[in-house]
Amino acid sequence: MTNQGTRGSMAKDFVDPNWPHIVIVGAGFGGLAAARQLGGAPVRVTVIDRNNYHLFVPLLYQVATAALSPADVAEPIRHVLGPYSNIRVVLGEVTGVDTGARQVALSTGETLSYDRLVMATGSTSSYFGHDEWRAVAPACKSIEEARVIRSRILSAFEEAERDSAADREALMTFVVVGGGPTGVELAGSIAELARYALTSDFRRIRPETAKIILIEGGPRILGAFPDDLATYAERALRQLGVRVMTDMPVESITAEGLTAGGQFIPACTVLWGAGVAPTGAAKLLGIEPGPGGRVPVRSDLTVEGLENVYSLGDVAACLDEDGRPLPGLAQVAQQQGNYLGKALRAELTKGQKSKPFRFHNRGNAAIIGRHAAIFDFGRFHMKGYPAWMLWAIVHVVLLVNFAQRIRVSLQWLWRYLTYRRGARIITTPVVRQAGR
Amino acid sequence: MTNQGTRGSMAKDFVDPNWPHIVIVGAGFGGLAAARQLGGAPVRVTVIDRNNYHLFVPLLYQVATAALSPADVAEPIRHVLGPYSNIRVVLGEVTGVDTGARQVALSTGETLSYDRLVMATGSTSSYFGHDEWRAVAPACKSIEEARVIRSRILSAFEEAERDSAADREALMTFVVVGGGPTGVELAGSIAELARYALTSDFRRIRPETAKIILIEGGPRILGAFPDDLATYAERALRQLGVRVMTDMPVESITAEGLTAGGQFIPACTVLWGAGVAPTGAAKLLGIEPGPGGRVPVRSDLTVEGLENVYSLGDVAACLDEDGRPLPGLAQVAQQQGNYLGKALRAELTKGQKSKPFRFHNRGNAAIIGRHAAIFDFGRFHMKGYPAWMLWAIVHVVLLVNFAQRIRVSLQWLWRYLTYRRGARIITTPVVRQAGR
Repeated sequence: MTNQGTRGSMAKDFVDPNWPHIVIVGAGFGGLAAARQLGGAPVRVTVIDRNNYHLFVPLLYQVATAALSPADVAEPIRHVLGPYSNIRVVLGEVTGVDTGARQVALSTGETLSYDRLVMATGSTSSYFGHDEWRAVAPACKSIEEARVIRSRILSAFEEAERDSAADREALMTFVVVGGGPTGVELAGSIAELARYALTSDFRRIRPETAKIILIEGGPRILGAFPDDLATYAERALRQLGVRVMTDMPVESITAEGLTAGGQFIPACTVLWGAGVAPTGAAKLLGIEPGPGGRVPVRSDLTVEGLENVYSLGDVAACLDEDGRPLPGLAQVAQQQGNYLGKALRAELTKGQKSKPFRFHNRGNAAIIGRHAAIFDFGRFHMKGYPAWMLWAIVHVVLLVNFAQRIRVSLQWLWRYLTYRRGARIITTPVVRQAGR
Repeated sequence: MTNQGTRGSMAKDFVDPNWPHIVIVGAGFGGLAAARQLGGAPVRVTVIDRNNYHLFVPLLYQVATAALSPADVAEPIRHVLGPYSNIRVVLGEVTGVDTGARQVALSTGETLSYDRLVMATGSTSSYFGHDEWRAVAPACKSIEEARVIRSRILSAFEEAERDSAADREALMTFVVVGGGPTGVELAGSIAELARYALTSDFRRIRPETAKIILIEGGPRILGAFPDDLATYAERALRQLGVRVMTDMPVESITAEGLTAGGQFIPACTVLWGAGVAPTGAAKLLGIEPGPGGRVPVRSDLTVEGLENVYSLGDVAACLDEDGRPLPGLAQVAQQQGNYLGKALRAELTKGQKSKPFRFHNRGNAAIIGRHAAIFDFGRFHMKGYPAWMLWAIVHVVLLVNFAQRIRVSLQWLWRYLTYRRGARIITTPVVRQAGR
């Protein structure tokens, strides 16, 4: 490793090839937190990700609804980890793990030997066995998908504005599948886009009359939240003009619309916010998957049945004190990453063993729209304007670096003052079926 | 046309279907300026563009080099023209013009009748008959292209960082073809990216040692600028670490590199800043193209040989007092758009005839990098820091709306203070030939 004189003294930038090597797969909230905790320690760290950026997934729905730009919610991994000379970043995908030989094979053809391996590969959208719905009902888990959703929503209004528009009703119907936080946030944000940002944009159509429908298969939305908060959220959504339809399990989705609970809803835009599944880390590790296909880990985040392998975040099944798997939340991954980074540092540099990981609930939030959010702190519930303010502050603070914090806060402030959406550009061609 | 009560009084929003109908094709600097001048007048205006946004092309190279996001240089056309109820925006491409029947056919299947037609379709990149170079050496004329260039540049550094990198030298060589303002700006901006923004990002490579080469076929760069300014620019480029090679006409470009002036330069990244050509407006109008394939127009911007048809901007060949065609610059298009919008307004609402169009040179600029730019005002030349400051101010002022002005200025300020590039994300997969 060459010494880069511009970044500090010789001593500080020294990296010993004999230091233990920790390979972290995935630079999400968990992987990145673990890497940072190991920055500057006498260990070598390699962070592998298939993207060159860390993605702030909780704000991705704002890219999908034209409020933020992709670069606002994506931070170059090298920029975050650049200051630590003992951390190396590799752009690539892991294609195989040999836990016996302690080696990781990469899509780039490289093979890396590790002393400790951390699998933090996260989750991906799941269509519950209906992968044919993926093309018609995009999910919102990546920048590419967010950009596709943005183009679809904006193009639907454009097509409805045409004199020749065949089915204005279906073009102006937006169905979001899934009443969890993602679905609620998407539906609320589309409603605000249509009712505030686009009102004076069109001549033939009135965007504020667009039908936004939130479809939930279960008896109520936000099943993971307490009753009072879910009830408030549903009322706030209705006030925004979102139709909330519960007990409507999806039966089929086509380019013409969606059938749920026996009812066909004509809609040109159907979005998927219903389910996630862990990435294939269990298979890569050659182990039996745990609850929900996740990687079963012990309370110190070591993978059950393996040596020197750890897992955390959405891909790992880590049980809480009551024996239930911790939810797939950014705060869980981040706390686990911080814990594991510190634990590995203590073990490898001082030979100290750490106490088991314990999750501290910092509050579970969902945002419905401007001035309307819910926060569940367990014993204490919060809703409405204070919850929205708190949500905004928390998310600004969570953003990984200072530059982003400033930029994103200014964008928010601007939108707050003007109801504008600056990123209203169609950059992905939308091809609809003939006859549309 | 429905009256949209939210956007003003009944009287103000009134649009009479018997008012004359002006169709403007293209929402670049020229088309948009013309439309705005006609906003609120007793005429009907339809603006047609194949994108839903106006693109600020002069700053596109900053998207290509990760300094700005696409949405920073793209403004939704509907947002700009939303306040004028007499202006309608149509997303689509013009597929045919019948100047006899005064009709325009659109890709959407619609046909529009016009009383006046304004062709403002701009220019596109030209490979001088070598269209096979397009795939290996992208130009920087659209958001898609800028995004491709950004991904190529960043991916080249990523690949060079790999242990398995086969040809680190070629991966870290960036060749820009064309010594005009576009080529100079691209080369300077890549040099700054490599020398400042990326320095602490990598471990195996030192981005500041990247080779950035500007290739020009003619005897000197910036041929349209006076000698003293071009000489200064060349010196400033060299100081930034850009190799300027003149008298090097390009002979071939492949995935392995470029051959120019009999010399082969191995390079994985070759960018095209060499030439533009007018879009096919002359063919659509069924007329003989004028100088350089452009639409020949008279001094009132009417198209020669046609009635009620106008053209302006890059696509039009409008002669100055000395009989030379005006250059393809944003300021020319904008002045022509303002002139034509006012002229049509005066003619159609008051029956007044306007004086011929006259171009007022506001200064021709090129930026080399931080603190280094050149400005040619004809009699007066400006260079270095003052020219850079002026360039920055002018471009901020030129940005079409207030929101963008604030956002882009803040980004610039931020970069200025930190040398950072926030939009350093690879979002377009880069596929290189095998053996790389």
